Amino acid sequence: MTATAYDHLAARFARIATIGEASAMLGWDAAAMMPPGGAAARGDQLAVLAGLAHEMLIAPEMAVALEAADPGPDPWRVANLALMRHAHRRATALPPDLVEAQARANSACEKVWREARRTADFALVRPYLAEVVGLVRQAAAALAPALGLSPYDALMDGFQRGIGAEDVAPVFAAYEAFLTEALPRAEQRQAAGPAPLRPQGPFPAAAQEALCRRLSARAGLDDRHARLDRSAHPFCGGTPTDIRITTRYDEADFAQSLLGVLHETGHALYERGLPEEWRRQPVGEAAGMAAHESQSLIVEMQACRSDAYLSWLGPELRATFGGDEAAYAPANLARLWRRIGRGFIRVEADEMTYPAHVILRFRLERALVSGDLAVADLPGAWNEAMAAALGITPPDDAQGCLQDIHWYDGAFGYFPSYTLGAMAAAQLMAAARREVSGLDAALGQGDLAPLLGWLRSRLHAQGSRLGFNDLLRAATGKPLDPGDFQAHLRARYLGE
Amino acid sequence: MTATAYDHLAARFARIATIGEASAMLGWDAAAMMPPGGAAARGDQLAVLAGLAHEMLIAPEMAVALEAADPGPDPWRVANLALMRHAHRRATALPPDLVEAQARANSACEKVWREARRTADFALVRPYLAEVVGLVRQAAAALAPALGLSPYDALMDGFQRGIGAEDVAPVFAAYEAFLTEALPRAEQRQAAGPAPLRPQGPFPAAAQEALCRRLSARAGLDDRHARLDRSAHPFCGGTPTDIRITTRYDEADFAQSLLGVLHETGHALYERGLPEEWRRQPVGEAAGMAAHESQSLIVEMQACRSDAYLSWLGPELRATFGGDEAAYAPANLARLWRRIGRGFIRVEADEMTYPAHVILRFRLERALVSGDLAVADLPGAWNEAMAAALGITPPDDAQGCLQDIHWYDGAFGYFPSYTLGAMAAAQLMAAARREVSGLDAALGQGDLAPLLGWLRSRLHAQGSRLGFNDLLRAATGKPLDPGDFQAHLRARYLGE
Repeated sequence: MTATAYDHLAARFARIATIGEASAMLGWDAAAMMPPGGAAARGDQLAVLAGLAHEMLIAPEMAVALEAADPGPDPWRVANLALMRHAHRRATALPPDLVEAQARANSACEKVWREARRTADFALVRPYLAEVVGLVRQAAAALAPALGLSPYDALMDGFQRGIGAEDVAPVFAAYEAFLTEALPRAEQRQAAGPAPLRPQGPFPAAAQEALCRRLSARAGLDDRHARLDRSAHPFCGGTPTDIRITTRYDEADFAQSLLGVLHETGHALYERGLPEEWRRQPVGEAAGMAAHESQSLIVEMQACRSDAYLSWLGPELRATFGGDEAAYAPANLARLWRRIGRGFIRVEADEMTYPAHVILRFRLERALVSGDLAVADLPGAWNEAMAAALGITPPDDAQGCLQDIHWYDGAFGYFPSYTLGAMAAAQLMAAARREVSGLDAALGQGDLAPLLGWLRSRLHAQGSRLGFNDLLRAATGKPLDPGDFQAHLRARYLGE
Repeated sequence: MTATAYDHLAARFARIATIGEASAMLGWDAAAMMPPGGAAARGDQLAVLAGLAHEMLIAPEMAVALEAADPGPDPWRVANLALMRHAHRRATALPPDLVEAQARANSACEKVWREARRTADFALVRPYLAEVVGLVRQAAAALAPALGLSPYDALMDGFQRGIGAEDVAPVFAAYEAFLTEALPRAEQRQAAGPAPLRPQGPFPAAAQEALCRRLSARAGLDDRHARLDRSAHPFCGGTPTDIRITTRYDEADFAQSLLGVLHETGHALYERGLPEEWRRQPVGEAAGMAAHESQSLIVEMQACRSDAYLSWLGPELRATFGGDEAAYAPANLARLWRRIGRGFIRVEADEMTYPAHVILRFRLERALVSGDLAVADLPGAWNEAMAAALGITPPDDAQGCLQDIHWYDGAFGYFPSYTLGAMAAAQLMAAARREVSGLDAALGQGDLAPLLGWLRSRLHAQGSRLGFNDLLRAATGKPLDPGDFQAHLRARYLGE
């Protein structure tokens, strides 16, 4: 009876996951293929599928089955059942009225935000954001007791299990101290070196696309299970056996698409490496957004911007595009693609200052959720924090608190994932270098196979059996330790 | 209460239709985009969505609601409720065990058929086809009383409502008599004229694709609601606001893609013209496969192979591809694309002999369903019928009874749609020519707008309110009348 209850649950969750796969494909299509006239119908299709999956998850017999099921001794089954219960708790903790109110408020706010950002007019979106934040507080208050977490951690948990604000805060404080000391020195060192040469285009989109395909394949992504297409906003979508990467091409600058595709390739390789025997079960999914970001960044930032990889890539690029040899010299590519600087915009930030953008948002969103910060005070608080972090003050809110969609779309607790991912990538890379001989020699041939083999066994194959810190502990022997990321930055930007 | 019951039903059917839209997009993706490694997961996704839609249709409360609903006096609502009940009767008439057995048997048979066709070995697939036919007989026997139709008509009804074998048989017999008389004369006339010149390629795929997009747009298809892509087997998929046409390109011959895209454009224009206020309701769907084929053929065969259209197209083609002017002369294009001949293969047949291929299949499949013909006797019966119809005998079964997938995949009752569509296209074109002034003058400018306007109001906007014969009666004043098709062929091939 109890074993049957577990198997029955597994079949139900597989069905829910299969609906999620259909939604993922339709989401990719909407971004990469759909003619504009299909948008309204597509919205309905996605809403119906999401509604069906939600209904299946919160169905009364699901609660009974979750209670009755016995997973037996296998730790994977134990973890899978725990994740099923966790998903059920999240889905049932929120009253349907609140979910609906959030969907409406987020959608309305996001629309107004586009205009507010365009005109740098925070006042325009302020009442909408206040509504969104009010509902987020209610949701966090409802989730917290159901999950046994603080309200903010209950939000974070929706993006990444296994690490909370109390773990994150000291890590981020330590990084701030590091940055205060290291950033000025790195800037001086950079200023003392030669200025980077920019390769001269145009770089035809078709040639960029062929190059991106080739490098993605060489990084380990197999085109029997993946496609590369174009969309306005690059992303990695699809399903583990049918990955869809997108990018966009600027014919004046190939770096954006090239590095972007390598980034998305990291996400894709993670999905491809998830444990096949747990496909469509909660425990077979990726471990969370921070874990996912660690995989995109270990490929893009750790592997493909390494000296070893650039020494291979430079000649490849020159063979592809022709032109000035000096611009494709590996040392010049390093200067070009590892350039630091203080800027207002997170998505344009280098890897050293990027965490400062995230830390600022982490503090402000915690304060918004707790009620310590009023929405009306957000622009001022933002600008003060930016001045304290990087010594610069945004000229307007479009370059300040209006720059990112996240909050205006109701996403609170997501921002830390970017920096947790960057730090985890450095920690994983350091462990891989210790354990895998010839890793950098292979990178010097454009070959990521040794790194990928290690990541597959240590991380990808774990699915979501472990939360973030436990996953890192299992892979590297310790929970999140910002020291490896700092050591990486010291080596790359200070020559230490 | 009763009005509410109807509205509630309409919402349920809209939800079912929305799931169908999701499936349609995933089906298109599988043919046009999906990397091969995604096939297994895609099969599961489509199966889960089909299962959900089926469950919603056969749910016990659906039967109650269908019984209780009162559509009021509006004839569209009356028709919609009738179609809902019809769909429910079809879905509930078949025992789930039989549906499952059919799915398994069809899939197994279709796989073996591919090998049997390749090796021209009917014996290989014979037991599989016998299983398929046995189950089809059971399904027809279960559907017939539920629908108040004969067993064969119950199968036909699954593809096209509103016409049955007793209507079709005399029409087909009349066509055979016509063909016996007309085909030899048309062949003589053709032989007496000059041989067609074949334009010399290569015709780059990109140029063909651009031309296909341009002609499809000029035929009335708007790219805000449609895409053109490539697939191994051309088709028209998607949804009414997001049509997906596919084709394939042969760089030695542009005619296949060009005429194929015009054919699919006819299907697409029908979907685009369906009544928006009945979107996602049974009455808002296309009227059936024969009605659909009439719309692809009226565009491809009636409009775009007309003298008027070719007089415009010839110079367009020459401007696109360059080369020998004589090959692009409208009279030469007519000789090339309106060439008749007796062949073994249905999909390669001209419009005059095509019905002979269909009539043969109609008779044989009726006999298979009734039990008058044993599967073991199919090859012999086929070859005899082909000899009687066109005076030719297939050299092997690959060019005979193994050529089409339909039966081997369990589709019985579909074949008549092709010829009903061709005849309806001629009947509709004759009516449009009577009622729309300047129709041929517009075709002479490559402009289908006058024809399309007439089709939209007379046919597309009717949705599936009417069955096949009633739809023709409403649009042309009479039920299916093969005379218009014969007159069209006499004019085009005999100069009469």
